[in-house]
Amino acid sequence: MTTAVSPLAPAGFPEMPEVAGMRVATAAAGIRYAGRTDVLLALFEPGTTVAGVFTRSKCPSAAVDWCRARVKSGRASALVVNSGNANAFTGKNGRAATSLTADITARAAGCRPEDIFLASTGVIGEPLDASKFGAVMDKMVADAAPGQWQDVAGAIMTTDTFPKGAAAIVRLGGTPVTICGVAKGAGMIAPDMATMLAFVFTDAPISKGVLQSLLSRGVVDSFNAVTIDGDTSTSDTLLAFATGAAAAHGAPKITRVADPRLAAFRKGFDAVLANLAEQVARDGEGARKLVEVIVEGARSKRSARKIALSIANSPLVKTAIAGEDANWGRVVMAVGKAGEPADRDRLSIWFGGVRVAHKGERDPSYDEAAVSAIMKKPEISLKVAIGLGQGRDRVLTCDLTKEYVAINGDYRS
Amino acid sequence: MTTAVSPLAPAGFPEMPEVAGMRVATAAAGIRYAGRTDVLLALFEPGTTVAGVFTRSKCPSAAVDWCRARVKSGRASALVVNSGNANAFTGKNGRAATSLTADITARAAGCRPEDIFLASTGVIGEPLDASKFGAVMDKMVADAAPGQWQDVAGAIMTTDTFPKGAAAIVRLGGTPVTICGVAKGAGMIAPDMATMLAFVFTDAPISKGVLQSLLSRGVVDSFNAVTIDGDTSTSDTLLAFATGAAAAHGAPKITRVADPRLAAFRKGFDAVLANLAEQVARDGEGARKLVEVIVEGARSKRSARKIALSIANSPLVKTAIAGEDANWGRVVMAVGKAGEPADRDRLSIWFGGVRVAHKGERDPSYDEAAVSAIMKKPEISLKVAIGLGQGRDRVLTCDLTKEYVAINGDYRS
Repeated sequence: MTTAVSPLAPAGFPEMPEVAGMRVATAAAGIRYAGRTDVLLALFEPGTTVAGVFTRSKCPSAAVDWCRARVKSGRASALVVNSGNANAFTGKNGRAATSLTADITARAAGCRPEDIFLASTGVIGEPLDASKFGAVMDKMVADAAPGQWQDVAGAIMTTDTFPKGAAAIVRLGGTPVTICGVAKGAGMIAPDMATMLAFVFTDAPISKGVLQSLLSRGVVDSFNAVTIDGDTSTSDTLLAFATGAAAAHGAPKITRVADPRLAAFRKGFDAVLANLAEQVARDGEGARKLVEVIVEGARSKRSARKIALSIANSPLVKTAIAGEDANWGRVVMAVGKAGEPADRDRLSIWFGGVRVAHKGERDPSYDEAAVSAIMKKPEISLKVAIGLGQGRDRVLTCDLTKEYVAINGDYRS
Repeated sequence: MTTAVSPLAPAGFPEMPEVAGMRVATAAAGIRYAGRTDVLLALFEPGTTVAGVFTRSKCPSAAVDWCRARVKSGRASALVVNSGNANAFTGKNGRAATSLTADITARAAGCRPEDIFLASTGVIGEPLDASKFGAVMDKMVADAAPGQWQDVAGAIMTTDTFPKGAAAIVRLGGTPVTICGVAKGAGMIAPDMATMLAFVFTDAPISKGVLQSLLSRGVVDSFNAVTIDGDTSTSDTLLAFATGAAAAHGAPKITRVADPRLAAFRKGFDAVLANLAEQVARDGEGARKLVEVIVEGARSKRSARKIALSIANSPLVKTAIAGEDANWGRVVMAVGKAGEPADRDRLSIWFGGVRVAHKGERDPSYDEAAVSAIMKKPEISLKVAIGLGQGRDRVLTCDLTKEYVAINGDYRS
């Protein structure tokens, strides 16, 4: 495993405000790692709403099953996350471990087990010994305090090379409210350590239905627009919690998606999601380049997304970028294999601002030196114009390096 | 680029019989390479039928466009293949190059341009200077002779590490007929050198409709069941030619797919396709392991194919195999992301003959040492039982190694 921080990491962990109505604590329960925290507890005041988006895997983890069943109530009292063990593909034992975790937490925190949300990340197929939470839970409940975002982000890391947090302060009907998020992972990219997890917290009084709508719509152009290797974890989980504590300072309760007072909040919420998703791409295993793929002129946004993902998931495009090669022939290949409407003779392709191919042929005026300079940069933008319609989309990915193969193939040797 | 022969290559080029009714020649036209042949010409006697299967890419090469338009006639006089330049994404120039190649060949061989089939493999986006064929064509026509299969396979190689050929002799209505095939490439796996090309030749008198049916059905479990990196070339081409010369020795003309005399021929034809397809997988770039993925118990064969390809294309499964790690957690992940019906709690997974997971949990009796020994072998069979139905399928792939990334990413440095 690599220990060096990704060269694409932000300069440091951001300043993040407290979110009224919640407290957090972390602990080292010894799930798998030594000498680091591996459990996160968040406690929410009564009235907190919750919404969730989960992996589309047909083989989800026990924690995903648990959350999916309970998120419908829209009511949350606590969140427990562990790293080191994904509690996935663990059968009956896995279901028992989720129940036991919820029971331990409910007893310590004085709430109902069904209002507790769970997420697990780490090795697949190993039984999770949930009794270990019993040894740390009472102290975590006693110690829980506001803020501490870097500790929160740190406790849920697996092979992440840096903790990921993002925050926004926006106005809701004139009252400032806070939105704080943390995330870990990058798709299913890590050795045995599956999973992207992200949690967003706000003190805004947002009803469960509105929160779910914000999340479901917000994820489309953030987490769903990031790919590292096209592999989908059994455990991907994104949960949003709204404590409503800002109502005490005059924030209005938002119960309709169409409420005009929601606009500024949505902007902040989406920015937090986008920021976290980008950090996930920046921590792609072995990544040395952050790659933005823009597709425009497709028949629809959906079609543009499919073409963009075909490019972003192509091993040949990704290895070319690792080799600092503006290999537009491979981009043509990836457009062609997407199966979406495309006309070879209308395609244009840019790396950075430089057009390398135009109307189905190499751009005769393309300056090799200019493109070479662009390809050496740590952040590369690749744009494809399909020339058929108005559909536009953007996804983020990273390059495919020998380091990726080493991290995912060598660790057993 | 690597020059060492793949460790998975067959011991040598096979013995292959002549196919009556055709002659071949190869030449060094200097398309891109120095000191090697890069053009193949095959000349067919009148009455030869042809069938084709082509890339599904929406951005096909000029040669694919050319063949697709002409294969409908079912009539072939010649085949010209060049390596070194794919004539793909070359716009109007590309179309002009195909016409010029056909004209040069027609003049030299005394046939109609529209009865000539073309395939090109090599760099994308570079104009193909078809006039170079003019310098070698007359001599090729004069020199053309039967057999020479290793030369034929060699002239169409790009980054292949060994020439690929396969043959069968079967009886058609009591008369022995020959089936010979050559292939190059492995999907879109090579640095700038796109494309899988394969050509099958027989002296059996098979009508164009029957030949197309044989090819379209035969490809399903051979070339369409092989994946290296999930990338699809702009130029993939599989053509079959039937000279009918065996009719002179009493072979019956086959004009109906349901003709019972076709059964033995189909078996031989399918075996040649399967053999060539497996050789393509054995030459996957950087491959050190040939991987057979078997999925059974899916809802349908189609569903089993989708799950098998999800496993075979997963970078995490492929890097794990490169690392000789029987990482069944990643196999679960790949089953889950396929989007096909699957029930976590019914899944069983085998590496070699050893069951490592059963009914949604790690197999308690699984012998780590036995599995370790299996993972060290150059050929690995991975079986997944879905437990929902009778759908079964099999695909071939190879592991994903640092060598793959080096070949596809480093060559520009």
